[in-house]
Amino acid sequence: MGSVILAVDAMGGDHGPKVTLPAVLDLLRGHEDCSVILVGDETILQPMLPHRWRHSERLRLVHTDEVVLSDDPVMVALRKKKRSSMRLSLELVECGEAQVAVSAGNTGALMALAKNVLKTHPCIDRPAILTSLPTMQGSCLMLDLGANVDAQADHLLQFARMGDIVARGLLGQERPRVALLNIGEEDIKGNEVIKKTHQLLQSSGLNYQGYIEGDGIFKGQADVVVCDGFVGNIALKVSEGVARMLAFRIRQEIESSWWRKALGGLAWPIWQGLKRQMDPARYNGASLVGLRGLVVKSHGGANQAAFLNALQVGLREVEHDVPGLMSRELAQDHEPEPGSDTRS
Amino acid sequence: MGSVILAVDAMGGDHGPKVTLPAVLDLLRGHEDCSVILVGDETILQPMLPHRWRHSERLRLVHTDEVVLSDDPVMVALRKKKRSSMRLSLELVECGEAQVAVSAGNTGALMALAKNVLKTHPCIDRPAILTSLPTMQGSCLMLDLGANVDAQADHLLQFARMGDIVARGLLGQERPRVALLNIGEEDIKGNEVIKKTHQLLQSSGLNYQGYIEGDGIFKGQADVVVCDGFVGNIALKVSEGVARMLAFRIRQEIESSWWRKALGGLAWPIWQGLKRQMDPARYNGASLVGLRGLVVKSHGGANQAAFLNALQVGLREVEHDVPGLMSRELAQDHEPEPGSDTRS
Repeated sequence: MGSVILAVDAMGGDHGPKVTLPAVLDLLRGHEDCSVILVGDETILQPMLPHRWRHSERLRLVHTDEVVLSDDPVMVALRKKKRSSMRLSLELVECGEAQVAVSAGNTGALMALAKNVLKTHPCIDRPAILTSLPTMQGSCLMLDLGANVDAQADHLLQFARMGDIVARGLLGQERPRVALLNIGEEDIKGNEVIKKTHQLLQSSGLNYQGYIEGDGIFKGQADVVVCDGFVGNIALKVSEGVARMLAFRIRQEIESSWWRKALGGLAWPIWQGLKRQMDPARYNGASLVGLRGLVVKSHGGANQAAFLNALQVGLREVEHDVPGLMSRELAQDHEPEPGSDTRS
Repeated sequence: MGSVILAVDAMGGDHGPKVTLPAVLDLLRGHEDCSVILVGDETILQPMLPHRWRHSERLRLVHTDEVVLSDDPVMVALRKKKRSSMRLSLELVECGEAQVAVSAGNTGALMALAKNVLKTHPCIDRPAILTSLPTMQGSCLMLDLGANVDAQADHLLQFARMGDIVARGLLGQERPRVALLNIGEEDIKGNEVIKKTHQLLQSSGLNYQGYIEGDGIFKGQADVVVCDGFVGNIALKVSEGVARMLAFRIRQEIESSWWRKALGGLAWPIWQGLKRQMDPARYNGASLVGLRGLVVKSHGGANQAAFLNALQVGLREVEHDVPGLMSRELAQDHEPEPGSDTRS
């Protein structure tokens, strides 16, 4: 098998193997040095495989007919479905057979199973969900996006450290600008947790820029934006909702008369360029950070291109040794300085 | 003077009288039945007034040279600037000389002064900031947008009631669909305050639709979206940031080559139509609800068209007797039913 091995939950997401399998084949075709262990129902997957991939040493099937459904409560995924494709994918990472697990399944279940199977990193209290967002300048990382409905200042500080590590490891940024999401840029703004976190970040050694407002994210004012999972999830969904609404309104505007349709048709290359830049597929693939193993979560509704992107996020994180960097750097942060308590 | 009288803080906002004065004149020209009391520095305002308005009975100046600056701490606005244009505008509403106050000044100071001068409505614990947002279907109301950095379930229930009243009074909706902003639509999602509020709303008698996610707002899934001020402010700013980033990317796409510039030029009417629909000016003017008087807050950076819109929001709220409706309906809600405690 190739040097990077991905464990892929073939059954997760709204479209299951119809999307995951072709995306996996795209990945294998484009990256000669990687292999995939596809976890799911063999009776469905086998007939879908093109002939040349049936006996490839770069693609292995692991059979299971148990699936975590999108509306399964976390407890069901955790306790009742011990052989789900989601769990088996994570176990392949846990036992070292794969270096990253990718799933488009139910986020809550994936996070709970990942904590259960892989365990939380010893220096981290709570794992978080991290993703990349487009900005006017390029892109930025944001976390947490929904793993924790509330978070204390200590947790937010840990999120900041993990975001900083991913930005350096994966994106090669030397001193990523870290900012804390708040409702104003002045020191007096925000609730108690935010103010406490602000203080911790000021003395964290990170390249901390202070508070950032919701619109500042998209101006590209920071490389890493830190927030709790409730706020982060709402910010992410709002940004998706606004983008979709604007696309809808542009379409409406174009379709309102025949001559506008003609003009809209002429402007086709502009739309295509814009679509290429802003395509949600380009931003699909959120990392679960703070675990003892790599996990990437794809949007449940991802199409083939989007799921391929999530696979590529996983591949890049392995290639850039994000887990190794995370282990080394977090352990370093965690070593108490002589005579001082770093957790104060 | 005309039947509706607005007290306008001429000095607030990034541009002061350069924006507020022309917008006020636009309002007076367009609405024969309204008058304005313009509060600010006479030595600046008087020379800017066109001759025909200098002695109009529909426009009165109230002089003061004290101004609340955009970076003034709330305490300064409250204690040190007893004759600020912002405070005097609110006092004109308090004493009944005007029916609504409009300011583009510092939000925190405006809310604090409004509570101090007008007082909180007896049936409301905390005033909130409410605004209108564009959706795929039209628009919706959202509150709170930043008056309260945290809120308990009781407060969120009150926000829902006030949003419902504004939607009925101002927009004429019979049974506005009320929804609670959360990070998932399932009952188990969210933090403790959200779950508690969900229960209160289910038995509130409102047309409660349950949870709404960040993207659902822009799909038009609700007429009134309820959230705390921290989340609401971030959602609002994120939506502005994404819209601005997309406009920036469209411009970039068009300006990337001469033939794209030509195509972009041909598609001009489409951009104009879109701009008309999505113009932030159309959505400027947030209402401070839950006070014993009407106050409308304009964006600090508002241009003339945007400030005019904030004035029109104030005018419409008076014309539709939103304060009267608010008083009557909240008092009704507040009357304990025989043998039961409505605040449980």
